[in-house]
Amino acid sequence: MRTRAAVALEAGKPLEVMEVNLDGPKAGEVLVEIKATGLCHTDEFTRSGADPEGIFPAILGHEGAGVVLECGPGVTSVKPGDHVIPLYTPECRECPSCLSRKTNLCTAIRDTQGRGLLPDGTTRFSMLDGTPIHHYMGCSTFANHTVIPEIALAKVREDAPFDKICYIGCGVTTGIGAVLNTARVEIGATAAVFGLGGIGLNVIQGLKMAGATMIIGVDINPERKAWGERFGMTHFVNPREVDNVVAHLVEMTRTPADRIGGVDYSFDCTGNTEVMRQALECTHRGWGESVVIGVAPAGAEISTRPFQLVTGRVWKGTAFGGARGRTDVPKFVDWYMDGRIQIDPMITHILSLEDINKGFDLMHEGASIRSVVVF
Amino acid sequence: MRTRAAVALEAGKPLEVMEVNLDGPKAGEVLVEIKATGLCHTDEFTRSGADPEGIFPAILGHEGAGVVLECGPGVTSVKPGDHVIPLYTPECRECPSCLSRKTNLCTAIRDTQGRGLLPDGTTRFSMLDGTPIHHYMGCSTFANHTVIPEIALAKVREDAPFDKICYIGCGVTTGIGAVLNTARVEIGATAAVFGLGGIGLNVIQGLKMAGATMIIGVDINPERKAWGERFGMTHFVNPREVDNVVAHLVEMTRTPADRIGGVDYSFDCTGNTEVMRQALECTHRGWGESVVIGVAPAGAEISTRPFQLVTGRVWKGTAFGGARGRTDVPKFVDWYMDGRIQIDPMITHILSLEDINKGFDLMHEGASIRSVVVF
Repeated sequence: MRTRAAVALEAGKPLEVMEVNLDGPKAGEVLVEIKATGLCHTDEFTRSGADPEGIFPAILGHEGAGVVLECGPGVTSVKPGDHVIPLYTPECRECPSCLSRKTNLCTAIRDTQGRGLLPDGTTRFSMLDGTPIHHYMGCSTFANHTVIPEIALAKVREDAPFDKICYIGCGVTTGIGAVLNTARVEIGATAAVFGLGGIGLNVIQGLKMAGATMIIGVDINPERKAWGERFGMTHFVNPREVDNVVAHLVEMTRTPADRIGGVDYSFDCTGNTEVMRQALECTHRGWGESVVIGVAPAGAEISTRPFQLVTGRVWKGTAFGGARGRTDVPKFVDWYMDGRIQIDPMITHILSLEDINKGFDLMHEGASIRSVVVF
Repeated sequence: MRTRAAVALEAGKPLEVMEVNLDGPKAGEVLVEIKATGLCHTDEFTRSGADPEGIFPAILGHEGAGVVLECGPGVTSVKPGDHVIPLYTPECRECPSCLSRKTNLCTAIRDTQGRGLLPDGTTRFSMLDGTPIHHYMGCSTFANHTVIPEIALAKVREDAPFDKICYIGCGVTTGIGAVLNTARVEIGATAAVFGLGGIGLNVIQGLKMAGATMIIGVDINPERKAWGERFGMTHFVNPREVDNVVAHLVEMTRTPADRIGGVDYSFDCTGNTEVMRQALECTHRGWGESVVIGVAPAGAEISTRPFQLVTGRVWKGTAFGGARGRTDVPKFVDWYMDGRIQIDPMITHILSLEDINKGFDLMHEGASIRSVVVF
């Protein structure tokens, strides 16, 4: 069949919207009609050429929602008509990682996914001249139709709006999951969130859900203060307005009973390795935990004095918020429909596929939290 | 009173054994007769001048055991005749850290201890000419008598030999505690231990106690292979004999069922920041945890790509093995007396106070695991 897609022809160029060929699903694969897709910084990381593992031409996009149209042989967990969210972190429930009960990082199709291919080592997309087009993060949601492995689809309820729940495919789950699954924040905790964009605001609402009592947002953009407050932020710090953001955060969290200070948990949502260090070092001696969420530039390294760890701080990271896609994503959709999770205010812009490049402009301007393309 | 002590007069010089003055215990303090003390790398770190926070003149030593001779006003938890192990990490049971249930890093007397003073801001030791001599890590066990705050004394059973249980004051507890308290290693786990000295061998026996099934020792000294095997090590790697120690460890831990490889837990017992990085990076994607135990040189920093954390590895540290001194040290003494913990083979040299500098020579030659001075 043919479908319309925004294709990344080469690194650093705008996406080009065009007709492409799409082969039908093979064994274990599913043809999905994408109804809506968010634009995430990770797409832009690859589009811009900053991602050293970027492969071109490719159809980017990994934050979508849609409907199953056709199933390949052997597919049993979804059927035509089912509403689904594609998963860039699949959940096979059979590999050592899935069976470990310790991680969500399923390795069943990791090698081929990393090379822009489906598990059989080929692509389903091609240009009209036959040139193969690579898949991206196993999803390629910047196409009206895509083919995805069964293990990379979360089946969700049918009354949930596609243009909102697509955001659960990455940003919402990453932010809230980092709090609930990775850090396991407890009631009464204090926390700092560095970077109040599409991930950071979800970390904030996750912290509010978890019962954190002091939720400090940190961002160099003063307009993000109002955004943070909307989702439960209790304090705001602009690093440009203080001498030393680490010392400032430690001072803010000192109490008469505890003169040491420091937050119980911190989250980096910037991808900046210097900020990752600040996030670690502002946590409390003895038990502070810092979670790296942001994706750093190629080759960038984090550093600190080992003394920070020896005195009880823990440095960890999270991918897809530690969530198991097929198990947890349907729950997140329920929570949204039950009003436990806010999504609507964060979807600041709705675009057509033709206008997809405007979404990246809005991202760079800091004008959007999330732009969503609706097909 | 007067007592005999090995005094560090200035950085980089051998200790000098001499008579010193010792004032009696003030409120909340206890006079202890030290019966035996181990020599630890941390003492040497300070003696050599490498420790930027080293203060001189001082009486070093922090791994001792002895008998209470006299209690200052208000002391209730020990009495003359009690056998005790001094604690460089006290346990006041009242500060925010002790009450947090999350850390052993009591902060009750941290400031004065770090400045070589007792909690009232003065020293009990002085030269015969009246010059004050600083305390060290709140212990100063390189003296036949010392004064220690009550909250920094673990009361232990009286049938346990001083020249063995002194080692529980640091090395034994640090190594075994890192496994049991900090990493909480589970039965069937795989682990790598970098540096098979007085700490690393105790990490190994902790791993054996915890039921780890693959215990890999890593050391550039081939003689340490036999030492590791004595305490439960199952595999040995000499980094000088392999191309890339991280890749080698990952390969060793690959199984037919799990082609990813990597150890579940790793422990740095070297203090070398490059080794700390290797220890992190050889852990398993998704759940590997690496624990920093070694003390790094002043100003040295650890680094890695944040990708290591985002893909599920955790970097943490431990001090005194996460043990609460007054609560856990008596248990470790019981475990030694019950035969659950080996100590005797690690005490390779017994010295008199006059020969204490020989103990540092043996340490540098790699000839000793632990030298103990018996008074």
